Amino acid sequence: MKTYGPVITFTSDFGTNDGYTGAVKGVILSRCLDARIVDICHQIEPWNVASAAWIIASAYKYFPQGTIHIVVVDPQVGSSQRRILVVGDSELFLAPDNGILTLVMKEQANWRAYELNKKEYWLPYVSNTFHTRDIFAPVAAHIASGIKPSEVGTEIPIESLARLENQEVSTVGGVINGRVVHIDRFGNLITNISNDRVKPRANCYLDDLKVGTVNNTYSSVTEGMAVAFPASHGYLEIAIHQGRASEILKAKVGSQVALELVPALAETEKAK
Amino acid sequence: MKTYGPVITFTSDFGTNDGYTGAVKGVILSRCLDARIVDICHQIEPWNVASAAWIIASAYKYFPQGTIHIVVVDPQVGSSQRRILVVGDSELFLAPDNGILTLVMKEQANWRAYELNKKEYWLPYVSNTFHTRDIFAPVAAHIASGIKPSEVGTEIPIESLARLENQEVSTVGGVINGRVVHIDRFGNLITNISNDRVKPRANCYLDDLKVGTVNNTYSSVTEGMAVAFPASHGYLEIAIHQGRASEILKAKVGSQVALELVPALAETEKAK
Amino acid sequence: MKTYGPVITFTSDFGTNDGYTGAVKGVILSRCLDARIVDICHQIEPWNVASAAWIIASAYKYFPQGTIHIVVVDPQVGSSQRRILVVGDSELFLAPDNGILTLVMKEQANWRAYELNKKEYWLPYVSNTFHTRDIFAPVAAHIASGIKPSEVGTEIPIESLARLENQEVSTVGGVINGRVVHIDRFGNLITNISNDRVKPRANCYLDDLKVGTVNNTYSSVTEGMAVAFPASHGYLEIAIHQGRASEILKAKVGSQVALELVPALAETEKAK
Repeated sequence: MKTYGPVITFTSDFGTNDGYTGAVKGVILSRCLDARIVDICHQIEPWNVASAAWIIASAYKYFPQGTIHIVVVDPQVGSSQRRILVVGDSELFLAPDNGILTLVMKEQANWRAYELNKKEYWLPYVSNTFHTRDIFAPVAAHIASGIKPSEVGTEIPIESLARLENQEVSTVGGVINGRVVHIDRFGNLITNISNDRVKPRANCYLDDLKVGTVNNTYSSVTEGMAVAFPASHGYLEIAIHQGRASEILKAKVGSQVALELVPALAETEKAK
Repeated sequence: MKTYGPVITFTSDFGTNDGYTGAVKGVILSRCLDARIVDICHQIEPWNVASAAWIIASAYKYFPQGTIHIVVVDPQVGSSQRRILVVGDSELFLAPDNGILTLVMKEQANWRAYELNKKEYWLPYVSNTFHTRDIFAPVAAHIASGIKPSEVGTEIPIESLARLENQEVSTVGGVINGRVVHIDRFGNLITNISNDRVKPRANCYLDDLKVGTVNNTYSSVTEGMAVAFPASHGYLEIAIHQGRASEILKAKVGSQVALELVPALAETEKAK
Repeated sequence: MKTYGPVITFTSDFGTNDGYTGAVKGVILSRCLDARIVDICHQIEPWNVASAAWIIASAYKYFPQGTIHIVVVDPQVGSSQRRILVVGDSELFLAPDNGILTLVMKEQANWRAYELNKKEYWLPYVSNTFHTRDIFAPVAAHIASGIKPSEVGTEIPIESLARLENQEVSTVGGVINGRVVHIDRFGNLITNISNDRVKPRANCYLDDLKVGTVNNTYSSVTEGMAVAFPASHGYLEIAIHQGRASEILKAKVGSQVALELVPALAETEKAK
């Protein structure tokens, strides 16, 4: 039988200006003192579910087998939206049912989902607005203490889970069309075009701007120059070597990205 | 006999741009490798003792019995102000004697306080300005290692401890008067009016602005609308559903909040 | 034989807006579940190697013997720059070979250095741009699990390591000349003039501005006044009591600082 924990990760848009993340950790440690709590990120833009979906997708696969991931960006907290437990091959996720696990769930075939509805695993008093502290944290601690995932909720069909829209990448006439899904601390633009679709020397466009041809890394170009490359997080990234691409290229989350896969040929054609 | 640790929480205005919090954790781990250090918040506005008092009050009660809380916002560091250990029913606090524990100490009847003055539990060299690293951290580690609270200082009367002023809530003629004590990451306004004083459908005013009647949660109103409700942290909160109340309502820490408890009656009276 | 771990510290310019630091911790915990990971700082100004050098120097000495420090600010990631392991008397450091350990290595006589080149201790797939996750993290975990430092790389001469320039402090005609190397969260100016060079009542100048004579601590002056004093982190600091020196004194990293060691005498001379 699989066991879960002791590692519990925590991703949210709670920020670090308040005591909110602290209270959540206190609830976990009160019920499972051996838990190893790891913050992945709490600075997600408030209510930006898509950014959270990308961040957890870029990080979860590096954690030990059996890790429990709490992932919460929840604009609808307090509504009738479900709170779910999603169990994959080697880890599990606790989250609101709002599409925040969309990218994670593209990566494995076998998922099971449960609606959290067994109140005996929650805090005795559940607030309207802080379900992470009152529901997700005690459920995570109980699972890390040996309670089976199937005991904390009722199984629901995977197909019934909410999914994020506009996360699809299309290929039309030799051009891959995606978009910027996250801007990181360095101002780098992270796209939803996965590295396995990227070809060397393809032309990369950001909205109507030609960024250049696909290269290897930041330092493939001189300082101040733009570069597009298959990045370490698994997706095409557009950056400025030692500069802030988001400002210099005036890009934002949602900006369109196009990869022209056979540029040499295409340009030969045009030249005729 | 009660024992303390291994959980040690840490709340401060040190920020996370420097190595200061790291050095404190190093000191603790050097003396008690089993300590479980949890950051509650380090982004408190510099020198804002009142905000720190609210943040630790909202979080401490979720931690395991025996937790040691280090709470430091200390505009007077280097002066003759005392450093204190305050022991409650199931946890203890290390802090400067400047009122930072005012809200915490309202919640239990039995506190004991000690002035930290046993230098054998401090770092060998104590700086003028970094008492958290040089005094609080090693004292916390010693207590987590089994030293009794009464050994690290001299007992002092609870009445002698500094208290924050302007934290009182008054009720005059059916109106409860409080104020905004904290603005959280989402721009929500947190007041010092505790939930047990709040009545459904009471009229809520922020300075001279009528916010509306007391409701249940953020999503009790449509997006962009203001809502006042008894919040998960235990106090009345004023928010904008998916918006930043602090900006839209032009509120700040110190803004006055009034709850008119019998609005229906009052309006009936007016209508006559 | 010395052993290393279980404490592993982590200092970077990765920020906390993304999942990057989370992935690094996942890699460590996947290989060494007993590791005690401590964040020192991730908010270093992007690519500011000098600031990182100061921050790790101010913090590392407070950690337990055997601590492993990962220190990464790496503008040249993806280039041919070496990745190094530096072993001191009681701790070790993993870092890019770009001078980031310059200040740390001034403090002990006996260092050994290794170039990381044993790929069996890295992740199976190493990206071009995220060596902290793919190389430093698994190497740290292996060492914390008992692998000897000499097994993970090839020894290289200490003299061959990169050093930061402009970190020297000079004394000319009774005047010590240094500079501001870091501005902390409170706007305090931290210089590279170590406390053992500082004399009480020396005149302190910031660029062309006289700050005052060297004093003891922040509260040695009244609120709003400037003060220079040998600070808790081991270096001369220039501050405004309860104010932001960086803004009020218009200083920045690189601003020149001069200490006139015999001001009383000098002024007596001038008066003649």
